[in-house]
Formats: sequence, C-alpha cells, structure tokens
Amino acid sequence: MSAWLLPDHIADVLPSEARHIEELRRQLLDTARGYGCELVMPPLLEHLESLLTGTGEALGLQTFKLVDQISGRTLGLRADTTPQVARIDAHLLNRSGVARLCYCGPVLHTRPDRPHATREPLQFGAEVYGHGGIEADLEVLLLAMDCLRATGVGSATVDLADARIVRALFTDVTVDAQALRDVHAALAAKDASALARLTRSFPSAAREGLAALVSLYGDAKVLDEARRVLPPVPGLHEALQQLRWLGGQIEGATVSYDLGDLRGYAYYSGMRFGIYTAGASDALVRGGRYDEVGAVFGRNRPAVGFSLDVKELVGVVPKRPLKAAIRAPWGEQEPLRAEIARLRAAGETVVCTLPGHGHEVDEFHCDRELVAEQGRWVLRSL
Amino acid sequence: MSAWLLPDHIADVLPSEARHIEELRRQLLDTARGYGCELVMPPLLEHLESLLTGTGEALGLQTFKLVDQISGRTLGLRADTTPQVARIDAHLLNRSGVARLCYCGPVLHTRPDRPHATREPLQFGAEVYGHGGIEADLEVLLLAMDCLRATGVGSATVDLADARIVRALFTDVTVDAQALRDVHAALAAKDASALARLTRSFPSAAREGLAALVSLYGDAKVLDEARRVLPPVPGLHEALQQLRWLGGQIEGATVSYDLGDLRGYAYYSGMRFGIYTAGASDALVRGGRYDEVGAVFGRNRPAVGFSLDVKELVGVVPKRPLKAAIRAPWGEQEPLRAEIARLRAAGETVVCTLPGHGHEVDEFHCDRELVAEQGRWVLRSL
Repeated sequence: MSAWLLPDHIADVLPSEARHIEELRRQLLDTARGYGCELVMPPLLEHLESLLTGTGEALGLQTFKLVDQISGRTLGLRADTTPQVARIDAHLLNRSGVARLCYCGPVLHTRPDRPHATREPLQFGAEVYGHGGIEADLEVLLLAMDCLRATGVGSATVDLADARIVRALFTDVTVDAQALRDVHAALAAKDASALARLTRSFPSAAREGLAALVSLYGDAKVLDEARRVLPPVPGLHEALQQLRWLGGQIEGATVSYDLGDLRGYAYYSGMRFGIYTAGASDALVRGGRYDEVGAVFGRNRPAVGFSLDVKELVGVVPKRPLKAAIRAPWGEQEPLRAEIARLRAAGETVVCTLPGHGHEVDEFHCDRELVAEQGRWVLRSL
Repeated sequence: MSAWLLPDHIADVLPSEARHIEELRRQLLDTARGYGCELVMPPLLEHLESLLTGTGEALGLQTFKLVDQISGRTLGLRADTTPQVARIDAHLLNRSGVARLCYCGPVLHTRPDRPHATREPLQFGAEVYGHGGIEADLEVLLLAMDCLRATGVGSATVDLADARIVRALFTDVTVDAQALRDVHAALAAKDASALARLTRSFPSAAREGLAALVSLYGDAKVLDEARRVLPPVPGLHEALQQLRWLGGQIEGATVSYDLGDLRGYAYYSGMRFGIYTAGASDALVRGGRYDEVGAVFGRNRPAVGFSLDVKELVGVVPKRPLKAAIRAPWGEQEPLRAEIARLRAAGETVVCTLPGHGHEVDEFHCDRELVAEQGRWVLRSL
C-alpha cells in the first residue's frame, strides 16, 4: 500500500477548492456575526461522556474513540459540535439572558452519513440559547437562509416539521421502547399498513392521528388538512399554528411541511427544519429547537440552532474566479523589494519568480508583471 | 466526574479569544496569499504510515492512534501538518516548478510539548517546494516575519542555525546510532566535558570542531569565530556563508546564531530558524529547510517552510477592541426588518432584543440603538 493513499471517505482539499471553502467560511461567520452570534472554538477531543450525554445512540456509533495517555480515560473525537456548544453555554458563559453562539470547525465520523459523504465534514453552525419563544426559531431560520444567500446558493426549499406533533399524539398512549421504535420506523417509511397494525390497540385519537400523519406532507394546505383531521390533543394545534406562522415569514424560498417527519427525533424538542437545494443529495442545512440538550450539563436552557457542512456547500454554489496576481522578478535591490511590499500591503498577490524558474507556467493567473522602466519599478499588463 | 470537565491540556476557546484567533487566522492566510501561497486543507485523519514516514520517532509518540472501522487499519490524528503538505506537493499537485502552499488547522498531541502547552494547537504554516536555492529560504523567513508584523507582534529575535554544520563535522566519523545520539545530547546540553569524553576517538578535525560548537552562539561575531576555528570540511563554510547572508537580509529584528543547535535535527536538512518574542516561553515560529521530507512519497523535492501555533500567537499580541454593535427591537414590521437587513449587509452587527429580554445586559458592546422616530427607523447613540 502506498504511503500517499488516504482512508476511504477522507480527502485532501486542493488549492482551487480550499480557497473557495475559506471564502465561504468567512462569509458564514461574518453573516452570523451580523446577527450578534459570538464565535466559540470547542476542542476536537473530549471525554466521551461529555460528547455523548443526552445526544442519543446514533452519535455514539459515529464517534471515534481513543485513549488519553495522561488520564487513561476514553476520549471521543467530536462527531457533532452542538453538544459542546450547549456545554459552553451552560457552564462557561453561564449567562441568564440570551446567548447567540456560532462555530466553524471539522467534525469526524467513523462512517460516512451517506454513500458519497466525507468522514470529515467542516461543520458551521449557529445557536440561540435562553429564549423559548418562536422569535428565536424564526431568527435561526432567517439566519440560515441569509447564510445560504450570502454564499451564493440559488433557489432553496425549506422543509418544516415539529417533533411535538408525534409526541402530542402519544400523550394518552403507554407503550414500551421497542413498540415506540417500531411506530417511528413505520412513520418514517410512511408505511400505512404497518402503522395500522402497530397502533391497533392505541386509543382511537392516537391511532387515527398517527395514520393521518403518513400523508400530511406538502405545501401549506397540509396545515389546513391537519387542523381538520388531527385530534385536539394538548400542544398539537399550537405546534401547527407556529409552523404556519414560521412558514409565512420565509421569503425567497419554497416552503413545504412534513408533519410525520421524525429525523433527529431524539434530539429535537420542537420545530425542525431542513433546507434543500439543487445539487445537494440531502438537506444542505438541518436545524431546529432542542431545549433538552444542555440538561446533562446542569442547565436546561431553551436552545434553537442549525448547522451545515461547508465542504458540501462548496459543491452547490457557483465557482468563483481566482483574483489575478502580479509576477515579479527576484532581486536583492531595495527599491524592488519596497515596491513588492507596497503591492502586498495593498492586498495584491505578488509571486516572485525564483532564480532559474522563469520558464515555468504560473499556477496563479498573473495578469500583470513588475518591470523596471527608466529606473523605476512599474506594472505592465500581461 | 462532571460531564463538563475537559481532559488536561484541552480547553474551549471562549468568544473574546475566539474572535481574536479568527482575525489572526485571516491575517496570516492573507499575508501568505500575498506571497502567492495557495491554501490546502489536508485531512485530520490518515493512515498512520503516511503521517509518520520520514518524520522521526518523536512525532510517532505525539500522534493519537485509532482504528478505522471501515478498513480495520490504524489511523493517526495529525500531530504536524508538514508531512501532509509534502504528500500533497509530491502526489496531488505533481508540479515540476515552484509550489507555494499554506495551511491553517488544528493538530493534536498525545502529550503537551511544554508544561503549559495545549494538546490542540491551531497550526498555521507556509512552505515553498521545488527551489533548492537560498532565495526560497529567504522568502520563507521574510514571510514568517511579515506574518508576525501583520498580526501585531512587537519586537522579535530571529535565531539562525543550520543542520549541515553538525553533519559536515561528522563526514569522516563512523559511529553507531547510540553514540551519535549521545553526542547530539551533549551538544544540545552544551556539555563540553561529556562531549570531550564521547568524541575522544574521533579524528581531530571532527573532535575539535564539535568542541568549538558548544560556545558558538550569539551575534554575528560567532560567524567570524566559526570561520576561524572550524575545520575546512566540505559544505561547512558554505553553510556559514549562507547564514551570514540570510542574517544580513533581516530587518526590524535582532538576529542571533547558534551553530550547535540541534532542535528538529531529524527533520531539517539545512538552514533552521526560530523566532522569539517577549511573552512566549519558547520559539513562536519554527522553520527551515527539509529537503528530504517528500522522499517517502516518491518525489524528493527541495522544501523550506515554517509553522506557528495561532493559539500561542494570540497570547503575545495586543488585545483588540470589540467592534461596537447596534441594538434593535424585535418586530414583525417590514420596514424594521428591512433596515436591520440593510445595516447587516453594510457590515454592522445588529443584535435584536428578543421579547422579554429587554432588561438583560448585552454581551456585545452596543453603542447605537435602532429606534422609531416620526415613522422612520433611525440610529441613536447609546
């Protein structure tokens, strides 16, 4: 095996793409900053318990484990940044009011999420802690849309769901964990016959409500239909009303609803959204409300946020032209060096031709050259 | 043990410092770009052999290992980015001419390098491949100095050394690996009596030359002294002449020389430098020439470069003031939303006060407020 072969689903990012990713990274962080989000940088490595508490089994399987030589304890490489940000909100900032936080850094997965996914996404995300009201849900949703707009994503579809809808239908139902998992699987597969069989012994309101969810996806008409067919269990109609309000606030994107959607169910406690765009095989952005995420760190603060993979984003936005550079000769003369320094300070890229390399093709697109003319260094077009 | 305790030498970076690190990161990358360095992003995880080939034993001990569930093979978390960049130059770019590359990303160490060091430095570096001449050494040295200047580092001392000096003195000496290690240790400790004992059986030129190295450190006078006392073995005087030339090109910093310095000996093949500044316990920047680093990847290209830890850099540069923000009320009215969007697009941070949180102290320093005045939204100083 050659020393230069990389593991499956692990890749180098080469210059043309790396430059683009760096530009997107800056635009995403600057957009979040415009909303008042403060940047945090949690570590890549933590004690495994801290990374996995309260996040569900799926994340545990995705997390690489290793042993700390200093303590002998098991560490995990973060597979998701949100539990870390919740820890920072709960313990380090310890604010009573609203905290808006954002982050951008690599996460690692033991296995790819999808057939062609990388095992090292560059995760960018933003979160609002401390406000349980729908206004924070909207702020996060609009920030996600602004992030896509700033980075050049064309048309987008926002898919809205709410974890409270399925939960509300289970209010009067007592089932064991396995039966609950089976019902969730049938719902996720929109398998009406399996669902009917599994919910046979449920109270009629729950049974009929769950059966109805299978077909409650599509545009805003779904909300009218849901209002008509779903039982008046506590919380359910409030959730529907909030989805309608949120959907009405979104401009410049198609809005769809999927009331039986259970993705991230273990995680989300309320509104949940995915943003889709042409060219991305799955949702480009995932977000929602996860009020319980900080509980294990001792502070159960309301929380709502989203994240995306910058490496995936770079594949769906238009390529950007490389800024043209200046070619300069190599030399020890002070006036030449001073002129190069001046151009660089003004934001130009100045590539010096090292002795003996004059015949080489430049990797940079140089559209100007620094030449000596009548004793002065001047720029000449190429 | 609480879920929020982090492993030793692992820390969160909180907002005030994270913002500063992000600014430094951008300045470093932009400075390198000004020199024509192209950004690359190698992965955090690789097959262990790729990470460790040709880099020496020390890096192996610093590297976290884990098992790839997909292949069953051992992977390493990078402890240094340079071998990865050499792999990219050798295999992916495969250019015949000069390649200038830069990178900025986390590396992980099993144990801290120094008593208070982090185990997760944020490594920034730049490298020039394909030119074996001293001009590339100088370009890298000047780029490193420019990076420090751009980020606000005050006075600096550049310490120059050259791995070829000790190597040249060993030309006619045949010793086993253990004896070589012992001599290196005595040289590194500047222990003249141990060195005399260990080199007793060496040819006189080598013995006297190595003995002289122990005291050959200090300002440029050291080079004159070296010229006088070191034997005329091949390559040695050329190395001294190049050090003198390089030292003479450095402006705005104190230059010192340490001809017996062996730090990074396994790695460097020529000129080596460290840049020191007040407040940093060790060298802030380390760099030099390491022409052999790409050999294991099948292309033995000349290479010279440097790296630094941005998390250490942030501790020695002056703190920067937080840009003042604008406070705005929360509201559904279109004119308010449009005005907030306009301010954000102009680069302002606009923090919306979510309903019920008006009494809270802002974490951002807001010096202006968006208020309605005669039916229009205007900014008022706070």
